[in-house]
Amino acid sequence: MAEPQPTDRAPVRREAFPHHRSITTRWMDNDIYGHVNNVVYYSFFDTAVNAALIEAGGLDIHAGPVIGLVVESQCRYVRPLAFPEPVTAGLRVGRLGNSSVRYEIGLFAGQEDAAAAFGHFVHVYVDRQTRRPVPLPADMRAFLEGLVVSGA
Amino acid sequence: MAEPQPTDRAPVRREAFPHHRSITTRWMDNDIYGHVNNVVYYSFFDTAVNAALIEAGGLDIHAGPVIGLVVESQCRYVRPLAFPEPVTAGLRVGRLGNSSVRYEIGLFAGQEDAAAAFGHFVHVYVDRQTRRPVPLPADMRAFLEGLVVSGA
Amino acid sequence: MAEPQPTDRAPVRREAFPHHRSITTRWMDNDIYGHVNNVVYYSFFDTAVNAALIEAGGLDIHAGPVIGLVVESQCRYVRPLAFPEPVTAGLRVGRLGNSSVRYEIGLFAGQEDAAAAFGHFVHVYVDRQTRRPVPLPADMRAFLEGLVVSGA
Amino acid sequence: MAEPQPTDRAPVRREAFPHHRSITTRWMDNDIYGHVNNVVYYSFFDTAVNAALIEAGGLDIHAGPVIGLVVESQCRYVRPLAFPEPVTAGLRVGRLGNSSVRYEIGLFAGQEDAAAAFGHFVHVYVDRQTRRPVPLPADMRAFLEGLVVSGA
Repeated sequence: MAEPQPTDRAPVRREAFPHHRSITTRWMDNDIYGHVNNVVYYSFFDTAVNAALIEAGGLDIHAGPVIGLVVESQCRYVRPLAFPEPVTAGLRVGRLGNSSVRYEIGLFAGQEDAAAAFGHFVHVYVDRQTRRPVPLPADMRAFLEGLVVSGA
Repeated sequence: MAEPQPTDRAPVRREAFPHHRSITTRWMDNDIYGHVNNVVYYSFFDTAVNAALIEAGGLDIHAGPVIGLVVESQCRYVRPLAFPEPVTAGLRVGRLGNSSVRYEIGLFAGQEDAAAAFGHFVHVYVDRQTRRPVPLPADMRAFLEGLVVSGA
Repeated sequence: MAEPQPTDRAPVRREAFPHHRSITTRWMDNDIYGHVNNVVYYSFFDTAVNAALIEAGGLDIHAGPVIGLVVESQCRYVRPLAFPEPVTAGLRVGRLGNSSVRYEIGLFAGQEDAAAAFGHFVHVYVDRQTRRPVPLPADMRAFLEGLVVSGA
Repeated sequence: MAEPQPTDRAPVRREAFPHHRSITTRWMDNDIYGHVNNVVYYSFFDTAVNAALIEAGGLDIHAGPVIGLVVESQCRYVRPLAFPEPVTAGLRVGRLGNSSVRYEIGLFAGQEDAAAAFGHFVHVYVDRQTRRPVPLPADMRAFLEGLVVSGA
């Protein structure tokens, strides 16, 4: 394959992320080949992002004025995850724009220090009613600034 | 409605279950009405059962001689669960047959003592190849006997 | 096992349901044992119910005055389903109350006439804001009356 | 944002894909904001790929000698999808290697001609037992060659 594969690269480590969250795997995450299905990794991504925003970033998903729409996401899979082992998601902000944020996430199996997968997704924050982009609310921005990793 | 509803009954409490497991909710568990979708409760059920069997009951899901097939499941929903709050699943065995087991599960939101939902599912254990019922393996039976609650 | 099992009973057939809907299976529906996971059947149930209500019963899930909360669900599994085969869901109404409805669903693999699974779930319709039970809207009731099967 | 966004680009159209598959949406696909959750798009991707391989490419997911592992996936979201509208997945092969394939997928809402989302994922085919890369089986390769789009 023309592109370098994840295994050719330096491993992504837990310390590369300022925020961590433990996520339990589920029986039905395992696909017919016995590992967590590739789709489920993205569920770990948006769980890590939204949980952080709700618990510390002031996001009110039920009635707040802004909602985050995902415009792009990506994942590189390095080694398999499997139920029933728990996963830790590491979270950082790769780019903090006026109304958009690039979240970067690493997923770590059990106590392992090298990421089993890593990826990103880009949120554009929009008005709940008009669905037009709006500036990030001040409290959310303040929280996210603490997750920006220089040189990431 | 003719049948008594869950709210008419005595609450199901944590102490009614000898085994507990914490399960994290996910962003996508919430449906359009802002609560964990009814389907996902069953995922908590089979996660609780299979995790216990794998970690303590000797179940080898990749290559073991027996697999558990679900022949019936049921859930009564008492009050809503919502992301990002974690859930605790309480597990007990309601009936332990020769090749079948009735698992009973209560789901508890956060630190609450009264169940948000409770239900059961019935596993029939079959040979991995023939898919015909077989007696429960001895180590699995020994583990499950410890989860039988008399008078449950 | 004390209870009669599905295989002891007369098969549930397509003609027992006045409304049908085709649902495609997905790769990740298959669990490690190669069949559609038991949890996913409930997703077929609420897809069949909500799609019918939206398309023909006047349900507006985004802004309508009432929402349906599931208070009970149950499924009996007769034979396995597997990706990539499509499923047909048959739908009927077993009981139509003032604010609650018991939906009964059969799931049929491919072109088969005998159900692979059957079950029910009970919706209580509540006010979107107060979440208190309210009478079924007239257009929804009219639609559901057409799905009542006498003697079901 | 530094990168061009999907809305800046020419739309991706149905005719850009030689293979199409209809996929039904499900009630629980909709998230709290009323649209199909970003994670679910990837389920449409791997459903389109695996269904094609099983039905026309000779893939035996239960006992075949090779299995496909996903090493990378990506999606760009242009406009929302929502239950109960069905989705059509368009599929083409962007690169056909010795043991790896880059699948490119467009997702189309209802009868729309411009993609609601598009993305790719890369499968590496490995031996079922050793999980080491192996050349694509001849019948799978023959099928995939028919999906290669020059200049894609």
